[in-house]
Amino acid sequence: MGENDDSDIIEHHVEEEMEKKGARSYAGSSSFLESVSPSEREGHSSTQSSHRLLAYSDALISIIATVMILPVAHTKVEDNEELRESVQVLLTTKIAVYLMTFLIVTVAWAAHILFQVIVRIDDCLALLNLACMMLITFLPYTFSLMATFPENVLGILLFCGCVMVIGIIQSVIVLYAFSRPFLLNEQIQISENQTFYKHHILKVIMRVPIMCFFASIFSFIFFQLSYVLLAIIIFLPYISQCLKWCRSKAIQVEETPDSMLFYTYLPNEPLSKERVEAFSDGVYAIVATLLILDIEDNVPDRTVVQKQFGGSLIAALQGYGPEYLAYFGSFATVGLLWFVHHSLFLHVTKATRFMGLLNTFSLAFVGGLPLAYQLTHEFPPNSHNELEAIQISCVIIFFAGIFQLAIWVVALYSEQETLHPYVRYGGREHVFMLAKLALYPCIALGMFFLTCILSKFSAPIFHLMEITVPFAFLVLRILVRVGLALLRLIFCPDRPDRRTIVEEEADETRVPFNALAT
Amino acid sequence: MGENDDSDIIEHHVEEEMEKKGARSYAGSSSFLESVSPSEREGHSSTQSSHRLLAYSDALISIIATVMILPVAHTKVEDNEELRESVQVLLTTKIAVYLMTFLIVTVAWAAHILFQVIVRIDDCLALLNLACMMLITFLPYTFSLMATFPENVLGILLFCGCVMVIGIIQSVIVLYAFSRPFLLNEQIQISENQTFYKHHILKVIMRVPIMCFFASIFSFIFFQLSYVLLAIIIFLPYISQCLKWCRSKAIQVEETPDSMLFYTYLPNEPLSKERVEAFSDGVYAIVATLLILDIEDNVPDRTVVQKQFGGSLIAALQGYGPEYLAYFGSFATVGLLWFVHHSLFLHVTKATRFMGLLNTFSLAFVGGLPLAYQLTHEFPPNSHNELEAIQISCVIIFFAGIFQLAIWVVALYSEQETLHPYVRYGGREHVFMLAKLALYPCIALGMFFLTCILSKFSAPIFHLMEITVPFAFLVLRILVRVGLALLRLIFCPDRPDRRTIVEEEADETRVPFNALAT
Repeated sequence: MGENDDSDIIEHHVEEEMEKKGARSYAGSSSFLESVSPSEREGHSSTQSSHRLLAYSDALISIIATVMILPVAHTKVEDNEELRESVQVLLTTKIAVYLMTFLIVTVAWAAHILFQVIVRIDDCLALLNLACMMLITFLPYTFSLMATFPENVLGILLFCGCVMVIGIIQSVIVLYAFSRPFLLNEQIQISENQTFYKHHILKVIMRVPIMCFFASIFSFIFFQLSYVLLAIIIFLPYISQCLKWCRSKAIQVEETPDSMLFYTYLPNEPLSKERVEAFSDGVYAIVATLLILDIEDNVPDRTVVQKQFGGSLIAALQGYGPEYLAYFGSFATVGLLWFVHHSLFLHVTKATRFMGLLNTFSLAFVGGLPLAYQLTHEFPPNSHNELEAIQISCVIIFFAGIFQLAIWVVALYSEQETLHPYVRYGGREHVFMLAKLALYPCIALGMFFLTCILSKFSAPIFHLMEITVPFAFLVLRILVRVGLALLRLIFCPDRPDRRTIVEEEADETRVPFNALAT
Repeated sequence: MGENDDSDIIEHHVEEEMEKKGARSYAGSSSFLESVSPSEREGHSSTQSSHRLLAYSDALISIIATVMILPVAHTKVEDNEELRESVQVLLTTKIAVYLMTFLIVTVAWAAHILFQVIVRIDDCLALLNLACMMLITFLPYTFSLMATFPENVLGILLFCGCVMVIGIIQSVIVLYAFSRPFLLNEQIQISENQTFYKHHILKVIMRVPIMCFFASIFSFIFFQLSYVLLAIIIFLPYISQCLKWCRSKAIQVEETPDSMLFYTYLPNEPLSKERVEAFSDGVYAIVATLLILDIEDNVPDRTVVQKQFGGSLIAALQGYGPEYLAYFGSFATVGLLWFVHHSLFLHVTKATRFMGLLNTFSLAFVGGLPLAYQLTHEFPPNSHNELEAIQISCVIIFFAGIFQLAIWVVALYSEQETLHPYVRYGGREHVFMLAKLALYPCIALGMFFLTCILSKFSAPIFHLMEITVPFAFLVLRILVRVGLALLRLIFCPDRPDRRTIVEEEADETRVPFNALAT
């Protein structure tokens, strides 16, 4: 508690200082927005740190990204037809909607870097941001319309309209903030070329709405082209900037350091690690909660219990047995994937945009877990459908885990910048982290092949295995230790005894890493 | 970004220091859990700041508290019967379940103060906490069972079983953490009487499970008594400690300062302001998202559009017009209530347990907004039911707003400790904050009376009014300023001109408040 108070005071001091600067710069500045809001002329409580606004927006965005799996998970899969067919029906529309929503919402999240440039807000900015959020939460609906009526222009027009209005609101936010420089990041505040920053940010923000404008015009002429344009928009930052990055690598152009700070969309642009964690936490939390929402439906009806089970509630609930098992198994999986993610980001000192992209892919699969949960307890035991449902679950878990592993691999590529020294290549912590990350992909792969070999493999076994995984994590440290000792014994039997090795490693970690990290 | 890196390094330094201390104290300590986990003998990456674990748990808890409104909101209300009757049916079971769940989950959240005592975690604690979370998310299900089958002991037994297992896991966490003192809060780490703390915390943690144990035994003898016991459990911390507080006020007992730090449950015990904000953000975010989940159902069916509307999607969507209006109106209300909450906590320097309780009540009503949303667009226009639905909405909004106002009033009672100096009684910012907080209760009250007077008042008008409220917030500053100027003109016409008043106030705010806050 004492710590909180201190940080409040520090923040407040900073605010006050900014106020003074603001008051000074305000006297000189003149903007067309000056007449819009009277709040700026007020005392110093009218500006606020944007931290909580950002946290709330992140929470909203992560929930809206994940919650779209619900319509997918609740699609009734007929029991008599083959699962493969119904999954194909799902795939063509609802899963596509889910993935597109997840990606577009993540693009919106990335664009919200805006509030890392604008570090202080006033009431007017808070309200503008809420209007923005309202439209972002409306986007999934327009996606559903597009998926259900692909040949109707209305869905495209609604989507493009929303994106354009969001773009206009964001531009107003930028113009408003740059007309009151005390709201901005200190780096920009003291920078000479503020107008350069303003134009750069406006250019990046307006790029997507302008493409949407063209897409909406094309929708009247040849609507297929609109979809191509919209698909380009989602990957636009990555495509265009990857190209730019490749070009700059090829012809060795030295860019101005100023232009590299924000909105470069380069794969190595740093992201706020805090925001990546908060967004991921939101997704994991909502996925875990969607599971319990489904189990809420399992409260039997009074009349049914009276008639079919002679009033015995226990007998009535026994029918739901597999679902409880599925719930606990799925919760354990979500919880442990979060745990691995948590361990991973503990060792990461700096998140880059490329790592953020891989994280998004991992989260998109984590968001698919409620679907896996729904499928695995829907079919009669030992049916062909059940086996396929388990296989789908394994695939989802495998990809969720493998993309986490990919983040680690990418981090290792530039480990000097992105990792704490004690987990860099070669140490024991490094091996342990690798083992943690590899556990889920390996288990998923193993279970997938088990389903191919054993015809008796069923959902309860699958969920029991899910529940036993936490214990695997507990013994993992011992296993890694034993494994390393064995390797050492086999390959270098003449190395000194363990005591000194431990001391050596302890020395290793005493590298002055703040010199490296800064 | 630079800031993040810095704070990481600082945190890491602290961790390293703690490590060293831990290593020292470890040599001397011996615990029954020592053989359980090998993780402790590892290098210094095995302990981690508990901050993200706490944030994730808070997110889970806030979502699970709010999501239970869904079964309430999705109860089909028959159109031909009177709303009052169906609401009464709702009230007796589902709303009771919702409110009980919300309260019990908030108790669980408050008990999670545990991880403010344990500020560093290792893998073992993280996994134990996840197990705890799994059982907490399962609690609402046991509540649903109890509500549907009140005379069956199974629901009570399941609930009590869960709570007892949670209590055991939490005790294991405490014992584990106290056996490795480097995991603990610095205050406790340097304290002489660590065992006193341990016993105090264990006593508080085990109180509820022990009462549940008795409740489960009584359920076999006389199950009504079990419910009384369970009801007492929820309010136990508040009841017992309010009594204790009154007693200590009456007989002037001087308690040892050590025992006052954690788990006192006194109304003035400080809560982490950060955690209160995070929990509230979670609730507001999930409520806003539940609204869009409902509107997702409004995508018309392809065949219906083809047959009934001749393929015209616009015609088909026109039927949903009122629902879009309801969505935007409700989103604006949730967003602005968050905005008011955000403004309020910006001025609060310290949150107390009593303020936390009022905040919980406010949030419980905010969680009811999806129900209000569902009701207002379900009935034909201008029917008696629609008017009553609007009245229920007004009541929900009124209470959500009035409890926020109550937080402010409570904060004012001890404004020296809980408020920033510039909003203390008498200043202009104070009046402005009061106006912000009073806006929603006033509007809700006004609309409630409008529905009583005007028989033509309908849901679309209600939602249009909801949408116009943001503009009221924008002009509020001007209104307050004009109002104050008028008051000044009427009551003290001989005061100096405005220019000097502003300067006076500016002087006022230059009070050295860090001296006051510390």
